[in-house]
Amino acid sequence: MPDTPSAPGSTGLDPDVAARLTRTPDGLVCAVVQQHDSGEVLMVGWMDDEALHRTLTSGRVTFWSRSRREYWRKGDTSGHTQHVRSVALDCDGDALLVRVDQVGVACHTGTRTCFEGRELTAVVAVGA
Amino acid sequence: MPDTPSAPGSTGLDPDVAARLTRTPDGLVCAVVQQHDSGEVLMVGWMDDEALHRTLTSGRVTFWSRSRREYWRKGDTSGHTQHVRSVALDCDGDALLVRVDQVGVACHTGTRTCFEGRELTAVVAVGA
Repeated sequence: MPDTPSAPGSTGLDPDVAARLTRTPDGLVCAVVQQHDSGEVLMVGWMDDEALHRTLTSGRVTFWSRSRREYWRKGDTSGHTQHVRSVALDCDGDALLVRVDQVGVACHTGTRTCFEGRELTAVVAVGA
Repeated sequence: MPDTPSAPGSTGLDPDVAARLTRTPDGLVCAVVQQHDSGEVLMVGWMDDEALHRTLTSGRVTFWSRSRREYWRKGDTSGHTQHVRSVALDCDGDALLVRVDQVGVACHTGTRTCFEGRELTAVVAVGA
């Protein structure tokens, strides 16, 4: 496995799509994963060009793991696969919205989403 | 206005929250903004510690603009304000889910969300 994200232009990703990406200093875009029918935001992962290419062409969501420095096809270890329904790139090219059908739970801690039970204390606007 | 994100620990952000953040090399976490009732993913922005502090304490969503290198309280120019309903930090500390009540449209291009009409061609898993 490579230990750095793919260089832009070095993968099979459609060059027109690659040209629209605005990457972080380490070559990544963030990918918001949403359950297609319920609207739940399940998790956020990171993709380099190669991970996006694999996601667009395989029907299975693949990330770049920043902590492990390798590609990570969601569910290969856990069985909690994510099946792609649609992928959209935002207006400034630095975020993807990946709508999926999630098998089981999305979070490695066992919660359905990576945000569940992790609320911060926030002031809520009066009247909002 | 500052032209670099705040150094960790230099702001009013609760130190316990600051200690849980996993920042990009440029000191940011991504913030997914979701309409609280419809579940629409409206946009993704970026927050440094100070932007998160302002978001948690003011009832209004504030980002760090990577392109303009300054704080950006959503709606101050456009009128399309985002009123905070809840904020959650994910399991590994690198993404926030900010549930809001969005006034008007979220995208500067005039679409309701920053992803609308911007789908990429993707293989959809058979049977998913």
